[in-house]
Amino acid sequence: MNVDQLIKEIYNKKSFLAVGLDTDLAKIPAFLLEYDDPAFEFNKRIIDATRDFCVAYKVNTAFYEDKGVDGWETLLRTEAYIGNNHFKIADAKRGDIGNTSDRYAQAFFTEANFDAVTVAPYMGYDSIAPFLAYENKYAIMLALTSNPGADDFQLQKLDNGKYLFEQVVETSSQWKNSERLMYVTGATRPEYLQAIRKISPDSFFLVPGVGAQGGSMEDVVKHGRTANIGLLINASRSIIYAGNGENFAGKAAEEAKKIVDEMSIYF
Amino acid sequence: MNVDQLIKEIYNKKSFLAVGLDTDLAKIPAFLLEYDDPAFEFNKRIIDATRDFCVAYKVNTAFYEDKGVDGWETLLRTEAYIGNNHFKIADAKRGDIGNTSDRYAQAFFTEANFDAVTVAPYMGYDSIAPFLAYENKYAIMLALTSNPGADDFQLQKLDNGKYLFEQVVETSSQWKNSERLMYVTGATRPEYLQAIRKISPDSFFLVPGVGAQGGSMEDVVKHGRTANIGLLINASRSIIYAGNGENFAGKAAEEAKKIVDEMSIYF
Repeated sequence: MNVDQLIKEIYNKKSFLAVGLDTDLAKIPAFLLEYDDPAFEFNKRIIDATRDFCVAYKVNTAFYEDKGVDGWETLLRTEAYIGNNHFKIADAKRGDIGNTSDRYAQAFFTEANFDAVTVAPYMGYDSIAPFLAYENKYAIMLALTSNPGADDFQLQKLDNGKYLFEQVVETSSQWKNSERLMYVTGATRPEYLQAIRKISPDSFFLVPGVGAQGGSMEDVVKHGRTANIGLLINASRSIIYAGNGENFAGKAAEEAKKIVDEMSIYF
Repeated sequence: MNVDQLIKEIYNKKSFLAVGLDTDLAKIPAFLLEYDDPAFEFNKRIIDATRDFCVAYKVNTAFYEDKGVDGWETLLRTEAYIGNNHFKIADAKRGDIGNTSDRYAQAFFTEANFDAVTVAPYMGYDSIAPFLAYENKYAIMLALTSNPGADDFQLQKLDNGKYLFEQVVETSSQWKNSERLMYVTGATRPEYLQAIRKISPDSFFLVPGVGAQGGSMEDVVKHGRTANIGLLINASRSIIYAGNGENFAGKAAEEAKKIVDEMSIYF
């Protein structure tokens, strides 16, 4: 799915919700543990229950890699099960020298069929360029994250008066194929979201931190929206672990629907 | 293997060489492609040929992930084959919010048995802390990398007069369990290596970029060594692709031995 199709889906569904599949075997309903691939069974039911409410799924690779080969299998099965009617994000936060990033891009865009991968900016242009070389694929770069550690480096002031995260967005906006760049901008610091939007007026922002982490949707939309919405608000745990019994998927759907209802006023 | 054992191995072997297993099916000898797991067959022969010359192996995860499930299998088989007499580095450049980094740490330290993982600093303390929570395991944080993109952000000057990479080392040196931190410092910028060593007098540096990328071992040792050497110089392609015929492993051994001969004057 490319960005035009994503925008179309956003308006069709009146939703800019991304559901995060951070699937943890310790948190899923016990009855699923009897299946061969419990994480996939969980994901499948969550996907079936939520696909009408969200426009994207975000799969955090860490929650699969920690199961080794089996986890990687689950990740690929989940990506395939989502299909082609949602924007599929591999939340992998990769980034390495060029020939190595090239491999990561192949892993997520060719071996798997994700539409976007999250990437870390620290190694600069040649570490991101391989992800931007695929038509209709996207790199979502960390700009300002929602965790406490964002203070350590992202909020360092540079000698030109800018914060590091502002420089990251400004510099990367000049790169070749930067129309395929999106940014991660946490909802917990809405005052800075406006600054990022000013530097990058048209790009999509992937926004974690609404709800559980204390960010407000109203603030995010106020400071971050574009003419095409331009936002993907991600919710993971608050949706997928809304229930823990036989009807966990129904609970997840309810939770997703609540968020979408909240979104409806912006259309 | 912990850092004391690593130091002992360095003095035993008079070597501070890490061999990088960036194994690319397009570059390995054609006769290996007939095996079920050609990358593992390649790694096995390279490991057997070089284990007396190096003290560490660095496995770049990207070169395995791009083969999906099979690649992950090869990565784990390779880690197991290396055994416990070398310092085993997963060059993964991970980093995410705390509960997610925790998963990555489990993936590499528990699911696999690596001694160290490379990590990216951008998300700050809570993204690295989970890697530092394991006794006798290490996080190797990107400080100043050897690629051209290092200029984009790492060499930004902060308003306190420091470069970002200096702040990264200074800040992280104050973190809990920072005695389990090492740093990636590229050989291609020896003038800055000294600055990093001043901030972090005792930590190990993992140094890519000697040889192929133009860095000089003499400069690296001059600016970076500690009383215990404190350096791991990594060579990947120059060793593992030294030959491409039946005797490729012998060629790799020759190349590794050349580097170790060059190192001998520092003992």
